[in-house]
Amino acid sequence: MFSLETFSLEVKTTGDTDIMDLTAAVAEKVQQSEVTEGLLNLFISGSTAALSTIEYESGVVNDLRDAIERLFPRDLIYEHDARWGDGNGYAHVRAAFLKPSLNIPIEEGRLLLGTWQQIVLLDFDNRPRQRRIRGQIIGIRPANG
Amino acid sequence: MFSLETFSLEVKTTGDTDIMDLTAAVAEKVQQSEVTEGLLNLFISGSTAALSTIEYESGVVNDLRDAIERLFPRDLIYEHDARWGDGNGYAHVRAAFLKPSLNIPIEEGRLLLGTWQQIVLLDFDNRPRQRRIRGQIIGIRPANG
Amino acid sequence: MFSLETFSLEVKTTGDTDIMDLTAAVAEKVQQSEVTEGLLNLFISGSTAALSTIEYESGVVNDLRDAIERLFPRDLIYEHDARWGDGNGYAHVRAAFLKPSLNIPIEEGRLLLGTWQQIVLLDFDNRPRQRRIRGQIIGIRPANG
Repeated sequence: MFSLETFSLEVKTTGDTDIMDLTAAVAEKVQQSEVTEGLLNLFISGSTAALSTIEYESGVVNDLRDAIERLFPRDLIYEHDARWGDGNGYAHVRAAFLKPSLNIPIEEGRLLLGTWQQIVLLDFDNRPRQRRIRGQIIGIRPANG
Repeated sequence: MFSLETFSLEVKTTGDTDIMDLTAAVAEKVQQSEVTEGLLNLFISGSTAALSTIEYESGVVNDLRDAIERLFPRDLIYEHDARWGDGNGYAHVRAAFLKPSLNIPIEEGRLLLGTWQQIVLLDFDNRPRQRRIRGQIIGIRPANG
Repeated sequence: MFSLETFSLEVKTTGDTDIMDLTAAVAEKVQQSEVTEGLLNLFISGSTAALSTIEYESGVVNDLRDAIERLFPRDLIYEHDARWGDGNGYAHVRAAFLKPSLNIPIEEGRLLLGTWQQIVLLDFDNRPRQRRIRGQIIGIRPANG
């Protein structure tokens, strides 16, 4: 039976390129959905955060953060800051590159991630934020026996 | 009732890293689809354009354009140009990084975007282009009453 | 009739930012699925590879590889390598930027790619790998006549 299941995750971030592992929380929601085969879409509303996957060990996480700082330095002059005084112009640019959406297949009721592949939220804003990630699962949900 | 709805948007760009706000046009198509809950996929055919989201105010838009120019300068030597004389090698590289696809959830008949989060087409080509963005919506469409 | 079709592609890569054209193999799987209208999701399990689209001619492919090397040099110091001795810290960072997922619409039984737009697997790991790409197609499959 084709089904569309939705869920939300609420998390608190520190901002400042906080990279947070969402895998366990997402896996629990997938299990609760009872969808056995389908596609999960994750989406973060807002223009200063993004979603991706990475091996979640502190070495790689720091390496990714270093690359982001190197490619999109916060101490450049940003027009957004000059105009609005938000001080987070770099965060907007980083989020536009990394994008707010991530898709992962579900098979036999489980996320098809590699063993060393975790789902991460990247919060680029310059302050702690309360974030809401939306999940949608489109797929097959066996009828109740 | 599960439904697959498709639509197209035709836009004219200036090229040259034109960053164009598609939000209002997409929102109108979503409303016309009558899908209340589902997933929207947007896709741009072609290898010199991409889709993302950003706060669409001219400061951030210029900041993003500056970052793209800094990271993928057009005055490097590109093999594509040496071979084909197109002069748009940088545009191909930029598009491969930013990718041609974007997914956004639909809830209660509306795009689940943040208030300061708009859908943008980025046209990296070195000349004005006519672009066609394809939308697919997979979701629930209430049966007619 | 709404349908969810899945398939796998197994490929051998050389690693070392191998950029491989998957278009013909994916197109064949799409044809076999008999889905005429729908959405294809491709996903690569693992944290050192990614998926995107590009004009697959050797000039552009080399230009993309050059950009990746320039932006994420392998000779920086990576904490991941210091900690685990894998020597592929740069590969993890590259993959997190390019992301493991790609969506492409299917219309009239065909991938809606541009003429000069091919599907590519990017394998950033520092050694040859056997990779498995998972495809999911959600869409309309005409009932058998």
